[in-house]
Amino acid sequence: MEHKVIGTNLAKVDAPERVTGKAAYGADLNLPGMLWAKIVRSPYPHARIKKIDTSKAAALPGVKAVITAEDFPVLEKGATAPLVGEVSISLNAVRELAMASDKARYHGQSVAAVAAIDPFIADDAARLVEIEYEELPVVGDLLDAMKSDAPLVHEDLFTTEEGEPEKGTQPSNIAMHMVYSRGDVEAGFRQADVVLEHTYRTQMVHQGYMEPQACAARVEPDGKVTVWTSTQGVFTVRNQLVALLGLPASRVKVVPMECGGGFGGKSLALFEPTVIVLAQKTGRPVKLVLSREDVLRATGPGSPTVITVKAGATREGKLTAVSASMRYDAGAFPGSPVSRGILVGLAPYKVDNMWAEGFDVVTNKPRVQAYRAPGGTPAAFAVESLMDMLAERIAMDPLELRAKNAVQQGDTFPLGMPINRIGLKEILERIKAHPCWTTPLVGPNRGRGLALGFWIGGSFTSSAHITINSDATASVHVGAVDLTGTRTTILQMAAEELQMQPRDIVVTVGDTDTAPFADVSGGSRITYTMSTAVYQACQDVIAQLKERAAEKLKVAADELEYGEKRVWVKSDPQKAVLLKDLARESVALGKGPIVGKGSTTRMQPAPAYAAHVADVEVDPETGKVKILRYTCFQDVGRAINPAQVEGQLQGGAVQGIGWALSEEYVFDKGILKNANLLDYRCPVALDLPMIDTVLIEVPASEGPYGLRGTGEVPIVPPGAALANAIYRAVGVRLDELPMTPERVFWATHSQTTHDEPQMAAAD
Amino acid sequence: MEHKVIGTNLAKVDAPERVTGKAAYGADLNLPGMLWAKIVRSPYPHARIKKIDTSKAAALPGVKAVITAEDFPVLEKGATAPLVGEVSISLNAVRELAMASDKARYHGQSVAAVAAIDPFIADDAARLVEIEYEELPVVGDLLDAMKSDAPLVHEDLFTTEEGEPEKGTQPSNIAMHMVYSRGDVEAGFRQADVVLEHTYRTQMVHQGYMEPQACAARVEPDGKVTVWTSTQGVFTVRNQLVALLGLPASRVKVVPMECGGGFGGKSLALFEPTVIVLAQKTGRPVKLVLSREDVLRATGPGSPTVITVKAGATREGKLTAVSASMRYDAGAFPGSPVSRGILVGLAPYKVDNMWAEGFDVVTNKPRVQAYRAPGGTPAAFAVESLMDMLAERIAMDPLELRAKNAVQQGDTFPLGMPINRIGLKEILERIKAHPCWTTPLVGPNRGRGLALGFWIGGSFTSSAHITINSDATASVHVGAVDLTGTRTTILQMAAEELQMQPRDIVVTVGDTDTAPFADVSGGSRITYTMSTAVYQACQDVIAQLKERAAEKLKVAADELEYGEKRVWVKSDPQKAVLLKDLARESVALGKGPIVGKGSTTRMQPAPAYAAHVADVEVDPETGKVKILRYTCFQDVGRAINPAQVEGQLQGGAVQGIGWALSEEYVFDKGILKNANLLDYRCPVALDLPMIDTVLIEVPASEGPYGLRGTGEVPIVPPGAALANAIYRAVGVRLDELPMTPERVFWATHSQTTHDEPQMAAAD
Repeated sequence: MEHKVIGTNLAKVDAPERVTGKAAYGADLNLPGMLWAKIVRSPYPHARIKKIDTSKAAALPGVKAVITAEDFPVLEKGATAPLVGEVSISLNAVRELAMASDKARYHGQSVAAVAAIDPFIADDAARLVEIEYEELPVVGDLLDAMKSDAPLVHEDLFTTEEGEPEKGTQPSNIAMHMVYSRGDVEAGFRQADVVLEHTYRTQMVHQGYMEPQACAARVEPDGKVTVWTSTQGVFTVRNQLVALLGLPASRVKVVPMECGGGFGGKSLALFEPTVIVLAQKTGRPVKLVLSREDVLRATGPGSPTVITVKAGATREGKLTAVSASMRYDAGAFPGSPVSRGILVGLAPYKVDNMWAEGFDVVTNKPRVQAYRAPGGTPAAFAVESLMDMLAERIAMDPLELRAKNAVQQGDTFPLGMPINRIGLKEILERIKAHPCWTTPLVGPNRGRGLALGFWIGGSFTSSAHITINSDATASVHVGAVDLTGTRTTILQMAAEELQMQPRDIVVTVGDTDTAPFADVSGGSRITYTMSTAVYQACQDVIAQLKERAAEKLKVAADELEYGEKRVWVKSDPQKAVLLKDLARESVALGKGPIVGKGSTTRMQPAPAYAAHVADVEVDPETGKVKILRYTCFQDVGRAINPAQVEGQLQGGAVQGIGWALSEEYVFDKGILKNANLLDYRCPVALDLPMIDTVLIEVPASEGPYGLRGTGEVPIVPPGAALANAIYRAVGVRLDELPMTPERVFWATHSQTTHDEPQMAAAD
Repeated sequence: MEHKVIGTNLAKVDAPERVTGKAAYGADLNLPGMLWAKIVRSPYPHARIKKIDTSKAAALPGVKAVITAEDFPVLEKGATAPLVGEVSISLNAVRELAMASDKARYHGQSVAAVAAIDPFIADDAARLVEIEYEELPVVGDLLDAMKSDAPLVHEDLFTTEEGEPEKGTQPSNIAMHMVYSRGDVEAGFRQADVVLEHTYRTQMVHQGYMEPQACAARVEPDGKVTVWTSTQGVFTVRNQLVALLGLPASRVKVVPMECGGGFGGKSLALFEPTVIVLAQKTGRPVKLVLSREDVLRATGPGSPTVITVKAGATREGKLTAVSASMRYDAGAFPGSPVSRGILVGLAPYKVDNMWAEGFDVVTNKPRVQAYRAPGGTPAAFAVESLMDMLAERIAMDPLELRAKNAVQQGDTFPLGMPINRIGLKEILERIKAHPCWTTPLVGPNRGRGLALGFWIGGSFTSSAHITINSDATASVHVGAVDLTGTRTTILQMAAEELQMQPRDIVVTVGDTDTAPFADVSGGSRITYTMSTAVYQACQDVIAQLKERAAEKLKVAADELEYGEKRVWVKSDPQKAVLLKDLARESVALGKGPIVGKGSTTRMQPAPAYAAHVADVEVDPETGKVKILRYTCFQDVGRAINPAQVEGQLQGGAVQGIGWALSEEYVFDKGILKNANLLDYRCPVALDLPMIDTVLIEVPASEGPYGLRGTGEVPIVPPGAALANAIYRAVGVRLDELPMTPERVFWATHSQTTHDEPQMAAAD
């Protein structure tokens, strides 16, 4: 369909203020009488908190309050708060993460907080809080944590077996175990000509958002709370605060500041409760800004994993069975994305016999949070590496192996959901003909790797209100925080439907007192769901315009057409009413102002597949991997703003490349050793070539434009794409991320690189 | 009708922050990098601006910009902007009032402005702006200005004769002349037994809002303008700015700060353009805060007037004819409220033969703005004083004279509008039985006076959006600035209809990018029109709740009832759905969040009558008038919040008392001599007794509760009530306001107090 604004590279509306430094982030907020907060953190990865003496800290001049968990309202056991859709989160977990009560369960966990008149006094005061700890054995390693004799992170945590009403009878560090099964994998493996099995490991990584968390709270004289915060979801945060503080939503307002990156790590209300309680106690506004070290030690990184994958195929390349055991480390509280790992890792493959189990395991590390396609990257690293091995074993082109086993519409995803329209086949065909695949890669120590990726694409709730201003411009109001340029895509969609210039439309992300409800910005869902909400709101506006024009022209509304800033009679186009007249009159006469509403709660998913092709050159003397060329193929459904979509692909790929080659949390006895951006090595522009992108547009099954969410898929393939490329470059397969120069070097200089893959009995 | 929340004295929701000093007024705003603006003002009441040299000012270190009228966009001749409803305002007048271009037409008019890094440098810089003026003769006195040989304030102003297409051919200071006529006044006067005529004078007065104007502007890197301002109407201001600056409404956002009083004086965008242009020129936010002297000299006070009234009556007290000639001084640009004077002054009286003319006259004084029942107080002073004289002349009780001639529903207002339901008769009956009227007033130099008052009551456009939050609390969003406690009355009305606790509802006054449209807060229209808008929005919400409950309960929506936080089947009340479940699901399932909309553009007026009874004691040695007792009777239709309504009556009465006894602008050759609150004497608490109030509730013809606007009427009667009381105390009738001790003293010590009233030829 021909569009005028959709599909164009409209400059990001918030770009000028972001690049000029004028955008207001949480740390920029200054309120009269404001105090500065500082969190006191546990020096032990695992310890019982015996006693906290705040007296010295409270006595320091300039200190206005010192709080501990005792200052927070008491919660009911098992209390939850809505997080997104019908997914809830344990309130007790949120509260403990905001401020530990009985135990510190990771190094750096918040145990107390102070508020003082400047950040330096706050710092000093934090050091004066005296806490008596009883150190406990550290549960550091994921696999060790799963053993029955492991020390317990939670003495009252019993394993939930998905689908079973009863929990386990022994407390455990295994919070959850699940199994998905279809067909008969044992039979399937027996049918295979080749069976391979291997175990892969990934480390804890951080989302690396540029902006540390920052928030401020103010309590009005009548008790109403206002919070300004860097967050991915104002209503999400409000839900948690309402439940944590025991206040009605009418007494808690959450105001979004510009968010300098979230990627899933800014959805939980971990800091807002602290500044609110300090504000309540002091009667003054309180602000908290995390340091980079705080961010790395004590926010919500991505899970370390141990994943075993096993696949069987015929000699002709047909998969007969796939099984996986995925163990995800959630950090100090349950909630790793292991089920998503199962879904994402196995999503591309049509195989009737599938068995996958997942373990959600707690350890003494910071509690993980979502990280861009949460759970997906480690799973795809494992599966796509194994598939590459399998292709080689049967002497088949890896692309062809994927094509032979690709799912299509009508098949079933892992975990059981039906597959609607997808573009996997189209992606594979595009690669086949693309120079990045067809051009030979010559030279020593050079290799090319392929890996697939997937994200299911969230939906949940989004709403939009659109007002026609009295001068015929328009105002769009949404409650969805703009992380990725959604103000711009929303503007484009409104401009398209209303047939207005972008300049004539303003899009505002509002606060919880006034904005239309939206679930958290994440899951690649905002532009997707807003396409429906904005479209509906525009249709509502146009219907109202037609209704009013119909009255003036004395015709029926269905005889009218809207466009070119007028409403005209289809059979007599000269008979028309101008938009500007309807707009001007709307605020003075008749029914009143024209406001359209649109909302969606449960669109079907718009699953997005991707495939990355990486060319690398490995320096045998150092193990350093240089990326020569990197191409992302992705089914985006319909690119509302191609430049922004390309940016999403590039950004996600870069995070995946960092995850693959250089980023890892290095723990020593539960203490993070590289809690700074020098030693936690994210890629920078100098480390990378231009990431090429190829946008494939297979329209999603639902939505007015067929667009799909695009932001998360691109982080999924790089691990395996690069591992497979390294293998073709230097003949070793790495089975652990990150593939640092050190690891690559030792792998290429060892006799045995890893266990020989298992062979089927009959060869 | 029984109400639970309506009719209760819910504490004003904004009271705690106002009394604790936490409310954020325009002057409280501080933005990063902000500059301070200072206005350069004309030292002459009337002068041509020959030349402005800004170089010295611009060169002062710390000065970032100096602007004059040349920095403002050029306007088309005759350009207007919508002000309220279909009433427009001359953009050129607004622009000249913001910054004079060719002439200064009043002392203190803005002629240039500077922006500097602190207010002291700004002050110094303002003094360095060098302006060459050519002094012109001062047009000071209203009557002199009307003479054909008077110097001209505007060389291109020609008299508009209301109802005539052509203007006058000679430039004039008479901007507008109007005549309203019905019946035959000459014949009516001939029928009278008694005819009296007298001329009354009032001075320029100020609204006396406690908060000086303050505003700040910021221009984003992409040109979007945000203005924070103390205003009565965010959309009203936006309309003017859009037209003045040539920007679409999507590029101009107006954010309301708490307003510390407006009373009609804060509707024009007189200061916002200046800070915007300075912000555009400097690239930094700019704030302007007026001093009290600025406020008195150079904002929009109330018109001085000269009003001649003539009334004829039979000996039995029946009015046979009334005529009036009202001359209102608009200050430097046309726009005095003379037509409202005609309406208000004559509104209580049923008389078939009526003739009234009005003159809108310009002089070299600050351009007037609305002041609480604009035009009404001087007109009522004149008419009610004359009626009191007439009553005495025919030896009739003044209350009885009013009762004999009171209009009722079905009659016609002056200017021709039909009279809907009113409560004048009821008021007069209440007074008759009330102790303040029946209790004798004994003692020397004491007297009791009566005067009526009236306000037509505005309607125009108001809207409300109401959202049901996921926890079943509610959020109300409006675009009407809260001047008088309307957030509280809106909250009460929503709580009533939704049957919720006030604590569970939050009312927000939003900005122009996101709030539902509302015309200016003024005209006693907000609670009145919001009663309809809020009621509609609540009904919309309830309809949506029923629709969703109907689906769940599998019944038709009209079988359902809503109340007590549930929706139940009328014929089977146990079959119900809880509000909290509908609320929780609304953000996750089905149609999405529940948002109700309500809007009204043109309710009929809800005219409000009042009558005040004043007991005074005059000190013959000083002329000081002491008010012993003061009682306000008013038809309020329905008091949503009786305490707030009483506050409105008391507040308006006090302003009227100041207008009557002590407040006046003292000009000397066009220069205001008493530009401070010591010398411009508003009454303080020590000057006044408790103002008693009697609320009469005759429901208005339209609206869900029968309420009427209440804020403006009470300023109308005090002038005449006190003049009539003074007459009965010491035997002299004062015909000029204010009735200062000096004027009272000299009146009681002169031989002839004033001209003998004219008598009819046949007695």
